[in-house]
Amino acid sequence: MILSTCQRMAPALVLYFIASASIAQPVSRESLAHAEMLRARAMVGSNAMAIVTSLTTEVGPRLAGSQAEARARVWAIKTLTEKGFANVRNEPFEMNAWERHEEGAEILTPYPQPLAVTALGGSVPTEEDGLSAEVELFETLEDLKRVPAGSLSDRIAYVGHAMQRTQDGSSYGYFNKARTSGPSIAADKGAVGYLIRSVGTDSRRFPHTGSLRYQQGVPRIPALALSNPDADQLERIAEEGKTLSVRIKVDSSEVPAAQSGNVIAEVVGREAPEEIVVIGAHLDSWDLGTGAIDDGAGVGITMAALELIKDAGLAPRRTIRLVLWGAEEVGLLGANAYRDRYEATLGQHVIGSESDFGGGRVWKVTADSHTDAGDALFAEIARLLAPIGIAPGSDDQPGGGPDLYPLIAAGVPTLRLHQDGRDYFDLHHTADDTVDKLDAASLDQNVAAFAVFAWLVADSEVSFRSSRE
Amino acid sequence: MILSTCQRMAPALVLYFIASASIAQPVSRESLAHAEMLRARAMVGSNAMAIVTSLTTEVGPRLAGSQAEARARVWAIKTLTEKGFANVRNEPFEMNAWERHEEGAEILTPYPQPLAVTALGGSVPTEEDGLSAEVELFETLEDLKRVPAGSLSDRIAYVGHAMQRTQDGSSYGYFNKARTSGPSIAADKGAVGYLIRSVGTDSRRFPHTGSLRYQQGVPRIPALALSNPDADQLERIAEEGKTLSVRIKVDSSEVPAAQSGNVIAEVVGREAPEEIVVIGAHLDSWDLGTGAIDDGAGVGITMAALELIKDAGLAPRRTIRLVLWGAEEVGLLGANAYRDRYEATLGQHVIGSESDFGGGRVWKVTADSHTDAGDALFAEIARLLAPIGIAPGSDDQPGGGPDLYPLIAAGVPTLRLHQDGRDYFDLHHTADDTVDKLDAASLDQNVAAFAVFAWLVADSEVSFRSSRE
Repeated sequence: MILSTCQRMAPALVLYFIASASIAQPVSRESLAHAEMLRARAMVGSNAMAIVTSLTTEVGPRLAGSQAEARARVWAIKTLTEKGFANVRNEPFEMNAWERHEEGAEILTPYPQPLAVTALGGSVPTEEDGLSAEVELFETLEDLKRVPAGSLSDRIAYVGHAMQRTQDGSSYGYFNKARTSGPSIAADKGAVGYLIRSVGTDSRRFPHTGSLRYQQGVPRIPALALSNPDADQLERIAEEGKTLSVRIKVDSSEVPAAQSGNVIAEVVGREAPEEIVVIGAHLDSWDLGTGAIDDGAGVGITMAALELIKDAGLAPRRTIRLVLWGAEEVGLLGANAYRDRYEATLGQHVIGSESDFGGGRVWKVTADSHTDAGDALFAEIARLLAPIGIAPGSDDQPGGGPDLYPLIAAGVPTLRLHQDGRDYFDLHHTADDTVDKLDAASLDQNVAAFAVFAWLVADSEVSFRSSRE
Repeated sequence: MILSTCQRMAPALVLYFIASASIAQPVSRESLAHAEMLRARAMVGSNAMAIVTSLTTEVGPRLAGSQAEARARVWAIKTLTEKGFANVRNEPFEMNAWERHEEGAEILTPYPQPLAVTALGGSVPTEEDGLSAEVELFETLEDLKRVPAGSLSDRIAYVGHAMQRTQDGSSYGYFNKARTSGPSIAADKGAVGYLIRSVGTDSRRFPHTGSLRYQQGVPRIPALALSNPDADQLERIAEEGKTLSVRIKVDSSEVPAAQSGNVIAEVVGREAPEEIVVIGAHLDSWDLGTGAIDDGAGVGITMAALELIKDAGLAPRRTIRLVLWGAEEVGLLGANAYRDRYEATLGQHVIGSESDFGGGRVWKVTADSHTDAGDALFAEIARLLAPIGIAPGSDDQPGGGPDLYPLIAAGVPTLRLHQDGRDYFDLHHTADDTVDKLDAASLDQNVAAFAVFAWLVADSEVSFRSSRE
C-alpha cells in the first residue's frame, strides 16, 4: 500500500522540487492555495452537469445559423447574466446556413431493404424521387482517388474504411477526409452520388453526420453516411458479386445571410484586465442529437469553471474570458469571426484552451510554452493536476480545441486538457448524442482542471510567448 | 483447483447416479453417446451464425404479412431444401396486415425540438398534418386507469414507467401492458393520442415498437413510443410545470387479406414418425431492424441444431419438426394457424421448444414433465447440459416460447431453454436489432442445447404427459 502510494506521488514531487529549486516561483503561494481550493471544490461537485442539462433540454439541437442556435444564444446570455458574470454579450455574424429536411436510402437490388443514413452537412438535395444508381465500392479514399476520371459515370461511389478507436481520437483527422473531401473526389470521377461508412467507432444504427467541403468547379453531388451496421450490410451484399443498386434521397436547402454569433462573458482582471485568458466551447451542435457531448459538455465544463472562480470571490490579475463560439461545426465560422473582431488585441491573448472532446476525464495536459517562466508555470499546473489523474505531456502540436485554430495561426499560445476520447466517436454527430451519456463526476474533474489552469495563468504575470527560439 | 473441479462436477454426478440407480435408463447408452457427440460438434462451431446472417442480409426486415415476409419464406424454403431436410413446405394463412409509412413527433412548447419516436404496431394514422395537443403525464398505467372518464379530452396521454433489467426478462410481461392495453385505456378517458416510454432497458435514441391491442367499442387513437432519452427529456421538461404540447404524426395503413405462412422442415422418425418433437422460431420480425436477435437468432439456433442431427447421419425414433412460424409479432397468428391445422395430431406432439429470446447463452433448463420417465429423461438432458453452463430449474410455469402458447393450451408439454436476456431488451423491437449484435459462440451453445434435447427426446419412447396428477 505504502509503496504504491509513493509511486503515485513521485512524479508530482519531482516536478515540485525542480520548480522550486531552479527558478523563482511563477505564482504566489496564495495563488497556488486558491488553485488547490478551486480543485477541491470542483471535485466535490460543480455546476457543469446542470448547465449542460439545461442547454440540451431547454434548447436541444442547435444547428449553426438556425433559429435553434439563436435560442441557444438567448439561453446563454440569460444563464451567464443570472450567474453574475461581467460583460455578457452576443457578438453576431452572418453566415450561409444549411438545413436538413428529409433523407433516406434503400437497397433496390439484389435484396430490397431500407438503410439507416444521414445526409452529410452541406449536401445538395437529390431530385424529389431520389436518385437510383448502381454502387461502386471502395475500401479507402485512396482507392477512389486512383480510378480514372469519368470511370464512375452514373454510379454512386461508396468508401468504406472504418475509423479506429483511440484514446486521443487521433484517427479522426485521417478518416474524416472521406467525409469532407470524398464527395468532390467522387464527383470528379463522374459519380452522381456519394456514400460513406460513418466516421464513428460504434456498431449502432446511428449514422454520423458532419460537414463536407465541395471543391470549386466540380459538380456538387448528394452525399450521405451509412450507420456502421448498414455499411457492413452493404459490403456483405457486395461480396456476393450481384448488381448492387440503391436509391438515395436528400431534401435540404441553403439559407443565405443567416445569423449566428459568439456569446462572451468575463471575470475581469484586477491589474491587467486587457490581458486575456480564453476558455470556452462551441455553442452550436449538429441537428440530429441534442449536442450533449458535442459540445454541451464543453459549455458546461468551461462555464462551471469560470463560475467556480467567480463564486469563490477570486479576482485574478488578468481577465478570464469565456467564449461560446457559434457555427463551429460548419467550418469554425465563429472562431474566424472572433479572430477578425479581436485582431488588434490578439497580442494580449495570453493563452487559450477550448473544451470540445466530450465529457471524458482529462488524462494529459500539454502547452506550447516558449518561455522559461511559461515552463515553470506549466510545471505548477501539472503538479496541481496530478492528484486528479492528469499527467503532463510534452509531445504536443499546438492545439487546445478547433475554435483556437485561427488564434494559433495568429500566434496565440494554447494549453490543452486532453480528454479520454475512447467512447467519443461512438456518439459524435449522431442522434444519440444526448445528456444521459454524460457522467457528472467526469465533468467535475474537467472543471477542476480548467479552473486550476485558468486561475493560475490569469493570476500570474507569465507569458508563454516571449520568443526563446 | 482440484477442489473447484470436484465442486463443479458434483451435481451432474449426483443426477447421474440417481438416474441410473432408481429407474431404468430412459434412453440407450448409444443415444446418450450421440447426444454427447452432438453437443461437442455444436460447441466447436455450428451454422447458426451463418444462417442468421444469411436471413438478415438477404431478406432484412420482414414484417408480418408483408412482401418482405414472403421473401423470408422463399429464403427459408430454399435454405431448408438445400440443407436436405425432409417435407420442406410452406403452410400459408391469411391475415390483416399493418404497414408503417411515416412517423414523427416534436415538442411544440415550451422548448421546440424533435423527438425520436416510432408508431406502435397497429397504430391508426393521424391526420396528414399530425396531431397537436397538450400532454398529460402519468407515471404508471395504474395512474392512468384511475383518472375519471372524459378527463383527458383533447389531450395526449403519456405513460412513463421504465422497464427493469432482469436475467429472465420477466418484467416485460408487466411493462408491455402500457404498450398493448394503454392506448384504449387512454382513449376511454378521452385522450386523442397516446405516448409511452419505450418498453426497453437501453438509454439509446432507439424507440421500441411492438403491438398494441385496441379494445372493441373504444375510439382508436394513434399511439407511439418515445426512445428512453426522449422520455427522460419529456419528463424533465414537464417537471418545470410549463404547458407541454407536442405534435405527433403517424402514417400507416391496414392491408386486408395479406398472406403469411409457417415454413416447416423435418427429420423423419425411423420408428414412430407420427410422434413429433417441435422446435423452431418465428420467421417474421418488426420492420425497424433486420430482426437478428428477434428472431433471426432463434431461426439460426434451431435450424442449425436440426442440421447437426441430420448431418451426423442420425435417424431418431420420432420425427423432429422445425417450425418457422409466421406473423408471431402481431399476435401469434402463425402459431394459431399451426394449432388449427394440426389439431387432430396434437396428441402426438411429444414436446415443444421455441427459441425466441435473442442470442444470449442458455443458463437454465426447465420442462413440464408429468411422468416419472419424463423426469428421468429430463435429468439425463440436464446432466448433458451441465458442462456447457446450463442448470436445471424446477420453478417454471409451462413455457418454451410464445408460439407454443396455443399448443400448451391444447396440452402439449414444453421444455424451455432459458437464455440470459439481460441485454435483450436493449435491442428488442428497435432499428438496432442487427446481426452485428450476435455472438457466434453463444449461438453455438444454444445449438448444443437444442440438439441434445431434441435428439434425446426424439430418440426415446418417453412421454411427458401421461397423467400423474
